[in-house]
Amino acid sequence: MFDLNSYLVSKNNHINNSLNEILRDRLSSSRIVSAMEYSLMAGGKRIRPVLCIAAAEAVGGKADKVLPAACAIEMIHTYSLIHDDLPAIDNDGLRRGKPTCHVAFDEATAILAGDALLTLAFQILSSIELKNEHYASKWLSVICAISRAAGYQGMIEGQMRDIASEGLMLTLNELEEMHSLKTGAIIEASIYCGAIIENGNIEQIKQLGVYAKNIGLAFQVTDDILNVEGDPKIMGKAVGTDKNRKKSTYPSIMGIDKSREFAEKLADNALQALDGFDNRSDPLRAIAGYIIERKK
Amino acid sequence: MFDLNSYLVSKNNHINNSLNEILRDRLSSSRIVSAMEYSLMAGGKRIRPVLCIAAAEAVGGKADKVLPAACAIEMIHTYSLIHDDLPAIDNDGLRRGKPTCHVAFDEATAILAGDALLTLAFQILSSIELKNEHYASKWLSVICAISRAAGYQGMIEGQMRDIASEGLMLTLNELEEMHSLKTGAIIEASIYCGAIIENGNIEQIKQLGVYAKNIGLAFQVTDDILNVEGDPKIMGKAVGTDKNRKKSTYPSIMGIDKSREFAEKLADNALQALDGFDNRSDPLRAIAGYIIERKK
Repeated sequence: MFDLNSYLVSKNNHINNSLNEILRDRLSSSRIVSAMEYSLMAGGKRIRPVLCIAAAEAVGGKADKVLPAACAIEMIHTYSLIHDDLPAIDNDGLRRGKPTCHVAFDEATAILAGDALLTLAFQILSSIELKNEHYASKWLSVICAISRAAGYQGMIEGQMRDIASEGLMLTLNELEEMHSLKTGAIIEASIYCGAIIENGNIEQIKQLGVYAKNIGLAFQVTDDILNVEGDPKIMGKAVGTDKNRKKSTYPSIMGIDKSREFAEKLADNALQALDGFDNRSDPLRAIAGYIIERKK
Repeated sequence: MFDLNSYLVSKNNHINNSLNEILRDRLSSSRIVSAMEYSLMAGGKRIRPVLCIAAAEAVGGKADKVLPAACAIEMIHTYSLIHDDLPAIDNDGLRRGKPTCHVAFDEATAILAGDALLTLAFQILSSIELKNEHYASKWLSVICAISRAAGYQGMIEGQMRDIASEGLMLTLNELEEMHSLKTGAIIEASIYCGAIIENGNIEQIKQLGVYAKNIGLAFQVTDDILNVEGDPKIMGKAVGTDKNRKKSTYPSIMGIDKSREFAEKLADNALQALDGFDNRSDPLRAIAGYIIERKK
């Protein structure tokens, strides 16, 4: 019987060790590195890097090979949180139970620490040791997929729509498109990169894409539900903020019960997409359940 | 006789066409792309991409091959200006004669447009058509050099020191180190990337590195001089701002005449570094003069 909890603990250790190693190499006395480290090591769930590793394993690969991609994606995720929390955007003071970067440091440092984490992600992705030349063009594809998912055609456009939609009543389609850009694209890229680095075949990559789309959306629906009925102590951040900001969410459009059913349906779709995989995809299966059952 | 003016016009056209082409492929109706385009096409001098092309030519190469690097570097330069101009950092309202991005749009859009330009730079660098695998590992080196120069070990650390130094009296060494990080590193990367993409040999790359260090610093000394005695109408931005902010500058430390001499000395050093090159490095020679004689 696969034990997700010990899997997550072990992968989180692996990822955190690797992130710490990257940071240890740096000028640790500088204020910018302190701010980068403060946010990067603030105890995130590491969902995206774990998905990257689990996708590599599902196609028969190993965690070590995809670690640079996993770490880079977590850096990009952290940069996006730092910038989203800024006074000019969401103006959030608390994140993962700690003061946000601009509160703990200052606004200029937070802007630049976000910029630096985004830039460092690409430095990590391009400075891997290349065993052979074939490997190089694969890493270029990884950089391309990640930058596309994180950029104006993905995460950033999603954030723009999120800002523009405050106080508006979105349709379900508009809401889904916004989330697919804001959080879905980077989740899909995490899984895609894990699979291509470890030589997943076309059919596997296609099915992992279906899995990714479904859990990406399930993740967001669950986030919306937690923002209504989560425990702020467990979550390490305020709840009820979506309602206060008059944001369209799944609960606000379809109600909390239907939202829960919808998240379950999405997790089921994700599981079905893994039908053709063997037990090396058990972590991905378990994560689909975890994503909709989590409390934070 | 080499005519720098028509060279700059022709290269600027080439670069601007290429940047326009990149932007034309995008969702031009979105607000984020409008903001990116607003700042990117605001009439910058394009010094960095021109240097990238001129370095490629100096080692016998062609502009077309290095254009993705040249465009990516200009995007990174533009993102850094957008973020530096933000209220939380320099709070500048005017840039290149036009309202800065956060004034023309809003602060959230400016933060995200900067993020999007930085991310797009890496998308451009990783989505070039690869003729062969050897070429792929070369572009990985380009991404590594650019991300290193732009990140917490380069431009961003320089910006942090610039912020921290307001109101302090820096030594010449501290000032030089700050500039070498803030503007020097990216100028060096521009030249380095142009040369390595077009197969410059080790000796050429070493000498171009010396050239780059010297014109990078000459560029900054001249910027400081222009901030004292430049014409705001020609420059498209306010002058006297360094003094108002009590910033250490070359004129404030060594006086305006010595600063001018110092800039000339640096330009001479840059020229000497090109001694072993043939007339294909004439553009680089002429640019060394232009950098210290420019009025904006």
